[in-house]
Amino acid sequence: MADWWQWSQKKENEALTFAVVGVGRFGTAVCRELLSNGADVLAADFSEKAIDDLRQLEPSIEARVVDCTDEESMKESGILEMNTVVVGISEPIEASITTTLIAKDSEGSKVKRVIARATSDLHEKMLKRVGADKVVFPSRMQGERLGLELVRPNLIERLELDNQTGIDEITVPEEFIGRSLRDLNLRKNYLVNVLAAGPAEELTVNPPAKYILERGNILVVMGKTVDLQKLPQN
Amino acid sequence: MADWWQWSQKKENEALTFAVVGVGRFGTAVCRELLSNGADVLAADFSEKAIDDLRQLEPSIEARVVDCTDEESMKESGILEMNTVVVGISEPIEASITTTLIAKDSEGSKVKRVIARATSDLHEKMLKRVGADKVVFPSRMQGERLGLELVRPNLIERLELDNQTGIDEITVPEEFIGRSLRDLNLRKNYLVNVLAAGPAEELTVNPPAKYILERGNILVVMGKTVDLQKLPQN
Repeated sequence: MADWWQWSQKKENEALTFAVVGVGRFGTAVCRELLSNGADVLAADFSEKAIDDLRQLEPSIEARVVDCTDEESMKESGILEMNTVVVGISEPIEASITTTLIAKDSEGSKVKRVIARATSDLHEKMLKRVGADKVVFPSRMQGERLGLELVRPNLIERLELDNQTGIDEITVPEEFIGRSLRDLNLRKNYLVNVLAAGPAEELTVNPPAKYILERGNILVVMGKTVDLQKLPQN
Repeated sequence: MADWWQWSQKKENEALTFAVVGVGRFGTAVCRELLSNGADVLAADFSEKAIDDLRQLEPSIEARVVDCTDEESMKESGILEMNTVVVGISEPIEASITTTLIAKDSEGSKVKRVIARATSDLHEKMLKRVGADKVVFPSRMQGERLGLELVRPNLIERLELDNQTGIDEITVPEEFIGRSLRDLNLRKNYLVNVLAAGPAEELTVNPPAKYILERGNILVVMGKTVDLQKLPQN
């Protein structure tokens, strides 16, 4: 079944189409990111105000007021014609569950994948039971992010390569300011490799040894997590 | 004043201490990330159940039931002795605002920084008025993340170096499987640099040209965003 679907998708070179149901802060952010990457998006919400707010932010978006707990309304809206449906409704939980079930189970639905937002473990379980293919927890993920920022205040972004290795984007620590990469010799002194350095908007990738770090510059370094953590903090 | 504070902080080599008020999904994630990085955390919530749930997850945590909208309770709890207070309460909004104000304004409070979670623009504005130093929006940030994943399904993590350049962690696309890095020559054919490759748990950093990519492997590449987007998708 999975094989057939992949084959069919490649064969027809089908476009990726998305519906986002529930356009609060989460759903709106999903819509905007999809649009900015050139995807087709149909946005829907129970609330006329939510749809109006979204249209103000993104005048070009296709957005409709839809009762997403009603099968006929979902059909008429065109949501069930999309490949992927994102259910961004957080409450009432019944609405989130019903919408997910309709998208997955309605006769004639062309939806291949439903991604739903959960607010509790029980909510997650219910979403999976009615067929959600993926469940996301915005608060938990963002909480982890904030916790990390608090203990490593220089850290702007981090990429974990594996359990031991990572890439960190940090602001240049106080004691590195005005010094060249040759002078600092981070490879020898901290066992980390410099991938890029400079002002946020015009970083130099693979900077030369003579490169001098200035206040507010960003430094992108790769290395073992334990070594990255030894870099000075401001 | 800022100078004096920095000087004094360095002089006394003060430890970073944290209180997290409101331990739902967001606050709990903040606590766990802080603990896993070796920080001192005091957790507090109105709800005995929330505190019990947290203690089950993290038996070693110091956690208390506190009425955080009451100045005396906040003082007695020890929260006002911490450097940083994270207000993870999302509702009622009044509780989030009152807690922030007490932490910032109470006589004798040692709190230097309050980071609060907002659920609306108006909530954000109120938090800033009563003194929050930083306001975070979990849903918006996670929504952006999901939107990106949907249009670039191979993408596991991304680091934006500047507007034009980035580092992407992707799963090896179908057509790269079984081929060596020399053979693929991503530098020439896609204008991207390979930083690491291999299975998620044991990546090879700076892999040699003879390195052969296998199904399910991860590939970490650096380059211009437009070039990174041209890499094949599964």
